[in-house]
Amino acid sequence: MRTAVYPGSFDPITNGHVDILQRSLAIFDRVIVAIAENIRKQPLFTFEERKDHIRAAIGDDARVEYDAFGGLLVEYCKKKQATTIVRGLRAIADFEYEFQFAHMNRRLAPGIDTMFLMTAEENFYVSSSLVKEVASLGGDVSGLVPEGVRKALERKYRT
Amino acid sequence: MRTAVYPGSFDPITNGHVDILQRSLAIFDRVIVAIAENIRKQPLFTFEERKDHIRAAIGDDARVEYDAFGGLLVEYCKKKQATTIVRGLRAIADFEYEFQFAHMNRRLAPGIDTMFLMTAEENFYVSSSLVKEVASLGGDVSGLVPEGVRKALERKYRT
Amino acid sequence: MRTAVYPGSFDPITNGHVDILQRSLAIFDRVIVAIAENIRKQPLFTFEERKDHIRAAIGDDARVEYDAFGGLLVEYCKKKQATTIVRGLRAIADFEYEFQFAHMNRRLAPGIDTMFLMTAEENFYVSSSLVKEVASLGGDVSGLVPEGVRKALERKYRT
Amino acid sequence: MRTAVYPGSFDPITNGHVDILQRSLAIFDRVIVAIAENIRKQPLFTFEERKDHIRAAIGDDARVEYDAFGGLLVEYCKKKQATTIVRGLRAIADFEYEFQFAHMNRRLAPGIDTMFLMTAEENFYVSSSLVKEVASLGGDVSGLVPEGVRKALERKYRT
Amino acid sequence: MRTAVYPGSFDPITNGHVDILQRSLAIFDRVIVAIAENIRKQPLFTFEERKDHIRAAIGDDARVEYDAFGGLLVEYCKKKQATTIVRGLRAIADFEYEFQFAHMNRRLAPGIDTMFLMTAEENFYVSSSLVKEVASLGGDVSGLVPEGVRKALERKYRT
Amino acid sequence: MRTAVYPGSFDPITNGHVDILQRSLAIFDRVIVAIAENIRKQPLFTFEERKDHIRAAIGDDARVEYDAFGGLLVEYCKKKQATTIVRGLRAIADFEYEFQFAHMNRRLAPGIDTMFLMTAEENFYVSSSLVKEVASLGGDVSGLVPEGVRKALERKYRT
Repeated sequence: MRTAVYPGSFDPITNGHVDILQRSLAIFDRVIVAIAENIRKQPLFTFEERKDHIRAAIGDDARVEYDAFGGLLVEYCKKKQATTIVRGLRAIADFEYEFQFAHMNRRLAPGIDTMFLMTAEENFYVSSSLVKEVASLGGDVSGLVPEGVRKALERKYRT
Repeated sequence: MRTAVYPGSFDPITNGHVDILQRSLAIFDRVIVAIAENIRKQPLFTFEERKDHIRAAIGDDARVEYDAFGGLLVEYCKKKQATTIVRGLRAIADFEYEFQFAHMNRRLAPGIDTMFLMTAEENFYVSSSLVKEVASLGGDVSGLVPEGVRKALERKYRT
Repeated sequence: MRTAVYPGSFDPITNGHVDILQRSLAIFDRVIVAIAENIRKQPLFTFEERKDHIRAAIGDDARVEYDAFGGLLVEYCKKKQATTIVRGLRAIADFEYEFQFAHMNRRLAPGIDTMFLMTAEENFYVSSSLVKEVASLGGDVSGLVPEGVRKALERKYRT
Repeated sequence: MRTAVYPGSFDPITNGHVDILQRSLAIFDRVIVAIAENIRKQPLFTFEERKDHIRAAIGDDARVEYDAFGGLLVEYCKKKQATTIVRGLRAIADFEYEFQFAHMNRRLAPGIDTMFLMTAEENFYVSSSLVKEVASLGGDVSGLVPEGVRKALERKYRT
Repeated sequence: MRTAVYPGSFDPITNGHVDILQRSLAIFDRVIVAIAENIRKQPLFTFEERKDHIRAAIGDDARVEYDAFGGLLVEYCKKKQATTIVRGLRAIADFEYEFQFAHMNRRLAPGIDTMFLMTAEENFYVSSSLVKEVASLGGDVSGLVPEGVRKALERKYRT
Repeated sequence: MRTAVYPGSFDPITNGHVDILQRSLAIFDRVIVAIAENIRKQPLFTFEERKDHIRAAIGDDARVEYDAFGGLLVEYCKKKQATTIVRGLRAIADFEYEFQFAHMNRRLAPGIDTMFLMTAEENFYVSSSLVKEVASLGGDVSGLVPEGVRKALERKYRT
């Protein structure tokens, strides 16, 4: 059984994340969505909220597992017997950042590799932080995030 | 009448900003300099100071309007009946950032477009933050910012 | 009256070109589509064919003029009393190439400026050469080029 | 059974190609090395030579298949019942080129995806064309290409 | 006597820094390692610790001088009668940042130039901040930093 | 005595080349301008013309030597007892190309290093090929190339 880990903050999940996750399921038998717990700035949504958003967007799929993740990513992969890390690539800035991490991770654990998928063209300018900024200013983010996330953002920022 | 919005923090205005503003006046009948009010870190200059710096640099020109700006940029453009946002492009880093914003803004308001001008070669390494850093360390920023800004920076950092 | 020149080989026009042309009409009173005659490699379509493809895609619009173009672009602009060159930006590679030309043109003719629009997300991976390559291998390019161009490509490569 | 296609000219194969091929075997059950036949400029090595170089470098592995490839890549993938295209990413220039192709291929065949692996750090400046240039000038390319390729290059350029 | 300044935070020094420093000694008679004192966020190691780490990595070399550095870099160079600033280049992100600084410094002091060396391939994904992040999570950074730094990081993060 | 090699086609020399050459003389005791003989496409100017253009631009300087160069660059450097190759960096595209060559050269000859200087802002969009294109179309290239080159280009393209 081929297992991949798809790590991220997912604060919140965007349609770009959903697309990458679904496409990775065409390659792997099991994909673990590893939701980063200790992200630097305080997340907008709790771990439970972020997990619920992803699950609602993906629907019931026995091949997808949701987990909280902290510490060294390659150690987490070993523990989960995953040999591949999945990442989406949107732009040059992503490329350099991911390049650095992919090489560091290969050095730390030569048996674990990082695989990249190109973000679909309709999502390539969408990021969690830009979505939050637009939503916080009252902009309409439907079509950029799953419907449940759109509503959750509205509730957060209406208060 | 064709109206464009030129948004920015302008904290302070540089010769690069002045050049982009003047060149946009060759294309549009009216350009609104939209000075961002709620920028993340505390600005060095107040809104009034930033407005005065720009006005002093441009001189009296009935086609230029100065305004404070907050909230969603495309909503501001609609309110002002402007259909074009003007931005300067200096480098690759700018390009990707602007790319993301231009696409998001087109999605939020399909009738409003973003137009880019390339920063002139003598200004392409000049940014407000680098100018402030150099001035704060006692470096000479004449030729990079309008003379009034140079003096204002000197007063700020002499204290 | 504000006149812009939109130069290119347009061999053939793509939906990306059509989009940039239409958006430039929201800013200028007149846009001259300047079809490069002496492009380095032999064009697939003649000047007349390329002109017909663009006209068919845009429809009758008195504000659009079609012309053959050779020699120095800024001299052509002067002759046509156009003060702005319009270009689409798709990616970093475009950016650097366009950067170089925009600065050279400003040096050759300081009164003529280049204005950039970002290619829409659904077209940003589409280029005339990639479209020709795909069509020559029998791939379906509908949705990437106007319908007339799709048929013309089919006729060219069926032979 | 998960099948991937690894397409390229492989004229000749480099250690960078060998590394990407071996790492893709950790993800897929079968990898088809699709050697481009109709590359634009005359290849240095024949199809048979290129195939032999790869086979010698990889060794006997029932999971690897070698094939000549022409026409539309996604049609080739369909014929071979492969759902993933494997590509190595070395640098920004690669990134933009691959970006364009990956999106075009997804459009032509939504069920076929492109997966990227980052070239290992010791190979990221190695390309077939640079290797040929260095070898043609008498430079030592050992460590950059498999030993068999090094010898073949020496024979080619000694004559 | 040709003197260069190699400025940085060196918090801590990595094998990439050591390599650049040693290579710059092949060009200059004297290299001053200028350790930035007032870096924005609180450094992990004190100035004395950072100096000791570099000295231990380089060994006794009369051509290398260690100094604390604050204020405007070009003024520091003048004071030290150095006419060249040495910097390592790893990636595009570095390139643009360094580009901006090199041009600003040439403007502030036309007689002082910045010289760049490309980081060796085995170090190009290594940065002080990534090393600290990995070490703080218990990852093994041997081979990325000098042995003394590895031990110091271990002591810091074990507490 | 520290010797550097400044290699290039110099077909023709531009003000950007002149600037890099002069700045490299502030670091090295001797700089050998190595004019590539076997460049791929037929040069516009002969080796003798190119040499004369450079000499006329630099003036008599005992520290500058002019030479024709073919074959492997690092072998040429060894023969000339030069330990440094000097290159100008203008843009991202340059960066990646130079990156690849600098690493290859370090691998072929670990004792020979490549040093980069950033092209001055007024020259960063100037290349030999763009200068030739503009001149061939009758554009004015004064200020971009030395006066002797400007005249030579005029003579070439007038015929």
